Amino acid sequence: MTSGALTRVPGFRASGIAAGIKASGNLDLALIVSDHPCTAAAAFTTNAFQAAPVLFDRALLERKQNRGLQAILTNAGNANACTGSQGDADAARMAAFTAEALSLPPDSVFVMSTGIIGQPLPMDKLESGIKTAAAALGTSPNHGTQAAQAIMTTDLVSKEAYRQIEIDGQAIHLGGIAKGSGMIHPNMATMLAAIVTDANIAATDLQVCLTRAIATTFNRVSVDGDTSTNDTVVLLANGAAGETSLRETGLATFTAALTDLCADLAKQIARDGEGATKLIEVRISGAPSDEEAAQAAATVAISPLVKTAIFGHDPNWGRILMAIGRSSATVSPGQTSLWMEAGDFRVQLVAAGQPRPFDAAALSAAMQAATDIILEAEIGPGPGTATYWTCDFSYKYVEINAEYHT
Amino acid sequence: MTSGALTRVPGFRASGIAAGIKASGNLDLALIVSDHPCTAAAAFTTNAFQAAPVLFDRALLERKQNRGLQAILTNAGNANACTGSQGDADAARMAAFTAEALSLPPDSVFVMSTGIIGQPLPMDKLESGIKTAAAALGTSPNHGTQAAQAIMTTDLVSKEAYRQIEIDGQAIHLGGIAKGSGMIHPNMATMLAAIVTDANIAATDLQVCLTRAIATTFNRVSVDGDTSTNDTVVLLANGAAGETSLRETGLATFTAALTDLCADLAKQIARDGEGATKLIEVRISGAPSDEEAAQAAATVAISPLVKTAIFGHDPNWGRILMAIGRSSATVSPGQTSLWMEAGDFRVQLVAAGQPRPFDAAALSAAMQAATDIILEAEIGPGPGTATYWTCDFSYKYVEINAEYHT
Repeated sequence: MTSGALTRVPGFRASGIAAGIKASGNLDLALIVSDHPCTAAAAFTTNAFQAAPVLFDRALLERKQNRGLQAILTNAGNANACTGSQGDADAARMAAFTAEALSLPPDSVFVMSTGIIGQPLPMDKLESGIKTAAAALGTSPNHGTQAAQAIMTTDLVSKEAYRQIEIDGQAIHLGGIAKGSGMIHPNMATMLAAIVTDANIAATDLQVCLTRAIATTFNRVSVDGDTSTNDTVVLLANGAAGETSLRETGLATFTAALTDLCADLAKQIARDGEGATKLIEVRISGAPSDEEAAQAAATVAISPLVKTAIFGHDPNWGRILMAIGRSSATVSPGQTSLWMEAGDFRVQLVAAGQPRPFDAAALSAAMQAATDIILEAEIGPGPGTATYWTCDFSYKYVEINAEYHT
Repeated sequence: MTSGALTRVPGFRASGIAAGIKASGNLDLALIVSDHPCTAAAAFTTNAFQAAPVLFDRALLERKQNRGLQAILTNAGNANACTGSQGDADAARMAAFTAEALSLPPDSVFVMSTGIIGQPLPMDKLESGIKTAAAALGTSPNHGTQAAQAIMTTDLVSKEAYRQIEIDGQAIHLGGIAKGSGMIHPNMATMLAAIVTDANIAATDLQVCLTRAIATTFNRVSVDGDTSTNDTVVLLANGAAGETSLRETGLATFTAALTDLCADLAKQIARDGEGATKLIEVRISGAPSDEEAAQAAATVAISPLVKTAIFGHDPNWGRILMAIGRSSATVSPGQTSLWMEAGDFRVQLVAAGQPRPFDAAALSAAMQAATDIILEAEIGPGPGTATYWTCDFSYKYVEINAEYHT
């Protein structure tokens, strides 16, 4: 993780302050501002219940046709979800008040909210917080990191990622922050991410880049199979890196870097899943298509039986096959092979659908020692592949979610 | 629960004995035999990995065209799954040996297996066990109950259900046993059920009755969203109750009773879910179709966030809406209402998509005291309804599944 990821990108300032929305008094309001108007792209939850900020941002992006956006305000502690028309008004007010505080044009600010559901936003605290956040903006690494910290809810660690690439001799920078540790599942999750870049990219191209990057990253991470009402990824590109917009190979290079950055953030989310002790990477190959491979990978990744087995350091290949078999992917049982990797220890558990002998005690010990577990399955002769990230399922997950009271 | 359910049905004998397949020495071999050849129906797991007994029974039912079946042999302790061609041979041998021991025609015995995966059946123990089970057959209630006990794995209690109905002046009896407490999810689950009846029903009709009964019962129960390689429901009808086959209204009456019996067993399975402290019944109405209602109900029923909230006695309506919203069902957020029922305490939590005030402390206390929790949601103006059963998600579930080692 690169700290200060956001503010390493030229032309962006950030801040994270405590507005008193969280009862804990921790940082809970993050502001990200570009020095110049940006092209923008976004992706939102597919949940039928969409929180007020999601509805607001979606309409804003359409109204502005992905152009002329300049800031992202995010609060933690209150999701502004299931809050009715008051919630809609509050989301719009948050955005308008931020634009005012920054002397930006109206309709140039995205808003994101995460936290408890069904309670109105404390608008007085928000408004004075916005003023404080605007006054606190800066470009030091610490400013970027405080923004990352201010969007956390049950996250144990803040999540930042940074990439620098060169396209046609121009240095291009990408920085992003994300939050999310429970209710994480495509499409999307209680996952918020804000990504900024100084690349010069046309509005129409930028949305394509983001949609592609998300498909194999944020939409391939699951903590508990649940999807929230608030999930949002916002991307701002301020164009400071070059006079002309990226095209063709330049766009492809940018999309690859953006995908890599999103994968980095997605893995940070899975690793910090509620109660997680291990990151699990599920790799599927041999499906008829990438889509079917993703279905098989997702089914393994959300299986409580697989996830509790990994928590218990149990190389329980039967549960993994069971999960693959119950997915909607086409599986050729007689051509299915399975490997597990724990640290340096890689073992083939199944070949051609049959269990293979292995040293279960040694593998279990390697699982116990490893922070990352890779489950890799070939499920037939097809060309489809997919990778999915999740975490194990522990007592702590139950504790966090049973003892959190509304 | 009616004990001795199987042997209350005229013309059926049963036994449950300890064959030494389970290391614990508990009962692990159940035999059910009809005095006369039966018509038969069955339903099997949809998992791509199908255990040897599933493949055997499926082929047997087709070969016999649902006629001339007479016994069901079930072992617990070893699932005979992922056991290759040796497993196929062992399943056939189990059936043939049972027919021999009972002096039945070959090809008249169903076999079911449940337990660990990937290890060959201990055929010597099975063969001597089959002889013991054949010698132990009887018609007392205790014989039926021992058969129910002998198919248990991680089940804490045995599961039996019994119904008696009258059709055209004829008394008709139905008795069934089931097992399953983990890896429970349609279609089907590590769920085995054996049902017997003395109804006289034509082979072709019987499969229709069973398929209908299962659709809203065994296929609407989930403990952990996982589906096993071995799930099987077998139904034998020996015709002892009447000279002529049931038709039309008689068949409808029979199907209703069979559905009721299957629902009884399905609820017993959910209530005994691994680590469960409560039975959760999810009722959805207002969907465009029953299928969409079932999708919404299933998504609520498998949500770890909903299930941990109920374990923690938390009336967390936000998580329930979230789960409904992420299902593939058509939802009208502004027309969504939600109720919770815990014992005698029924509270409306959401009306027209907005939270309603309620006494959270009183509802939480009622949840703590209740053994059954009902979650009822109306998700729009449509005619579709569905009911789904599951259980809460506790520390004990994690313990059972993390500390069970292969």
